Amino acid sequence: MTFTDIASRTYNHNFRLDPIVRSLLDTDFYKLLMLQMIRRLHPETQVTFSLINRSKSVRLAEVIDEAELRAQLDHARSLRFAKKELIWLAGNSFYGKTQMFAPDFLAWLAEFQLPEYELERRDGQFVLHFHGPWTHTTMWEIPALTIVNELRSRAAMRGRDRFALDVLYARAKAKLWDKVERLRTLPDLVLSDFGTRRRHGFLWQRWCVEALKEGLGHRFIGTSNVLLAMDADLEAIGTNAHELPMVEAALSPDDASLADAPYRVLEQWRAHYGGNLLIALPDAFGTTSFLARAPDWVGDWTGFRPDSAPPIPGGEQIIRWWQAHGRDPREKLLIFSDGMDVESIEATYRHFNGRVRMSFGWGTNLTNDFRGCDPEGEAGLEPISLVCKVVAANGRPAVKLSDNPAKATGEPAEIERYLRVFGSEGRTEHAVQV
Amino acid sequence: MTFTDIASRTYNHNFRLDPIVRSLLDTDFYKLLMLQMIRRLHPETQVTFSLINRSKSVRLAEVIDEAELRAQLDHARSLRFAKKELIWLAGNSFYGKTQMFAPDFLAWLAEFQLPEYELERRDGQFVLHFHGPWTHTTMWEIPALTIVNELRSRAAMRGRDRFALDVLYARAKAKLWDKVERLRTLPDLVLSDFGTRRRHGFLWQRWCVEALKEGLGHRFIGTSNVLLAMDADLEAIGTNAHELPMVEAALSPDDASLADAPYRVLEQWRAHYGGNLLIALPDAFGTTSFLARAPDWVGDWTGFRPDSAPPIPGGEQIIRWWQAHGRDPREKLLIFSDGMDVESIEATYRHFNGRVRMSFGWGTNLTNDFRGCDPEGEAGLEPISLVCKVVAANGRPAVKLSDNPAKATGEPAEIERYLRVFGSEGRTEHAVQV
Repeated sequence: MTFTDIASRTYNHNFRLDPIVRSLLDTDFYKLLMLQMIRRLHPETQVTFSLINRSKSVRLAEVIDEAELRAQLDHARSLRFAKKELIWLAGNSFYGKTQMFAPDFLAWLAEFQLPEYELERRDGQFVLHFHGPWTHTTMWEIPALTIVNELRSRAAMRGRDRFALDVLYARAKAKLWDKVERLRTLPDLVLSDFGTRRRHGFLWQRWCVEALKEGLGHRFIGTSNVLLAMDADLEAIGTNAHELPMVEAALSPDDASLADAPYRVLEQWRAHYGGNLLIALPDAFGTTSFLARAPDWVGDWTGFRPDSAPPIPGGEQIIRWWQAHGRDPREKLLIFSDGMDVESIEATYRHFNGRVRMSFGWGTNLTNDFRGCDPEGEAGLEPISLVCKVVAANGRPAVKLSDNPAKATGEPAEIERYLRVFGSEGRTEHAVQV
Repeated sequence: MTFTDIASRTYNHNFRLDPIVRSLLDTDFYKLLMLQMIRRLHPETQVTFSLINRSKSVRLAEVIDEAELRAQLDHARSLRFAKKELIWLAGNSFYGKTQMFAPDFLAWLAEFQLPEYELERRDGQFVLHFHGPWTHTTMWEIPALTIVNELRSRAAMRGRDRFALDVLYARAKAKLWDKVERLRTLPDLVLSDFGTRRRHGFLWQRWCVEALKEGLGHRFIGTSNVLLAMDADLEAIGTNAHELPMVEAALSPDDASLADAPYRVLEQWRAHYGGNLLIALPDAFGTTSFLARAPDWVGDWTGFRPDSAPPIPGGEQIIRWWQAHGRDPREKLLIFSDGMDVESIEATYRHFNGRVRMSFGWGTNLTNDFRGCDPEGEAGLEPISLVCKVVAANGRPAVKLSDNPAKATGEPAEIERYLRVFGSEGRTEHAVQV
């Protein structure tokens, strides 16, 4: 006898939409931490986020149907934080701290809705902007990315039969588990999932997170994805991102104020959060410049997240800075999160082991590595370098320089001005894969 | 919302048995072809089949619960051929021939039931005998093997959590698909599934067969498993086995009659079947002896299935015989089926390509290759060399010499007598893996 749940089957025949984003918690934890601060300090600031596809050879608007994209974005706008989600945010501890989110913030979140979007097609790409209060547009970053990435995966797999899909996922599972087996030979590894934004799909990310929980044990400290953290009872991981210094910089009235923006943001952050959340992101306008002008108190912070310099020289540069400021690197933390994979995690781990505390944020190569897995060839499943970035604040253009010029964003004239203010020392171009 | 079919879930909680054999068609096709002939020629012959575990280091009775084994054997005895199965046997064509099975045989099959079994435990092994009419005991061979092999797999996986099992099967799927991708580079490959008897489990064999169908296209000609052939609309593959000459030999009244037994069996077979079913199995009492005494008309048969000599020298020996008897090997067929895997299939294919027609029966290494797949190590999933063989006919001991002394069966004194009659030329020992 074959048993079929006829009701489910009939429902499946008729569903209008298979939603990609089903919860507002399906986002990165740092968005919530930043949002709480943004709401206090910038309740009126208007910020535009825009989708930027750095992988220009992939013509997204020719791959993804615009109507499907609108349906998914509209669905995300229909979501509200569920009561149980807000209860969990209120009652859970994060980084060992209870009541991380203030009651007034949680009350405000209960009313939260993603704001409108502006979408058109131009030259084979989608032009997707989110205009509005920073307190709202910031929350589009992750859903916009997960929606576009998953629609692209779905398009690539359209028309595949069940068997080809079965082999595809079997190989991807086998591939990830081989990575897990390599990583668990590193006794003091500290690793978390940072793969939400570039994931192949939500269900695949969930499988990956379960694999790390099962296979890495204590080495796996949690996930940046708040929904998966809640569902799997894992730690939610993350602190802050480039949008903070980028908006602070964009709003700076003059060059002197601009030069000081990265440090003002750190002071604001410290006023809101402490302990392990005191992680500085040094590369928004170049790490070399950041370190050269950094006040001594930055040395009291828990650590740095070098996010665009190659990990080993990038880490060495920060260690030298700590030593020059009389800090013992063995008490400090480096979080590596830029395009890491097993090889670079192993190399970085071995290089720094015993000299500094380390943590790895494993992103695209965790949740979207199907290279060599597709029985029908590769087309469409290779990850692309898609970001959703602040492009303007209160009408003024925003800029990111990065340690890697290939990751810079902003208008050319404004980038020139930033390079004048911050200098370009230490910036070296290397290919951005993901 | 999570939907659960509560009725199915509740049923699953309470089932008494998850049957391994669910249909009498879940057997090898050659059993039915042989059975039709046995029923005509030997309606009264009493034949004992016995389980023989050549992998003595695996103490099966310590791995498999006797009560579970009895429950599965009892369940198999409760089966009858279903009406739709008999309709399919009657209406389908096999090897291009319609009405392969006569109406009186099918009417008799409708009443068929597996006979009683005799089971005890001795020295860590199961002693499992099937006594009774050959027309009934012959049908135990495959169910006995699939039941014991799958109970062993189930025992090895008991207590594994869902995740470990998921990785195990993902790796096994990836591994098989890698083999498929290698095999499909051989343009004229002709391959079938012979893996029923040693399969990891029924569901896994079904997946493997679907994989070959999908991945090898026309290179995959079918399966020896009758149920899978029916369900997947594939050709049922197989002709005859050692039990025919073994019983004919055991019933021979004297040495002269014994020496002639292998050829009498071929004449009987030819009287029942023709065309592509005229495949001689030369190794029951040694291929060298068989060929040396073979009548010239054996050269008119479609081909040979060398089943215990190494494929390349074994094939060359037969080609030399054809040439010596004025036959063109390019019009003849060799079926290789002894412990084949991708490497030996490739090597054999390349060696004989263009010189003889070839077909490969892929068994254990198709349906039970989990080597390197188990996240928790290997114990219990490596295939074992388990057979179910004729040991006596009408009270007289049965013997198989084989080209490989490691595969010989029978009482030592009787083996001596057979070696006197057939000689031992050309027999060389090599390890039996599976």
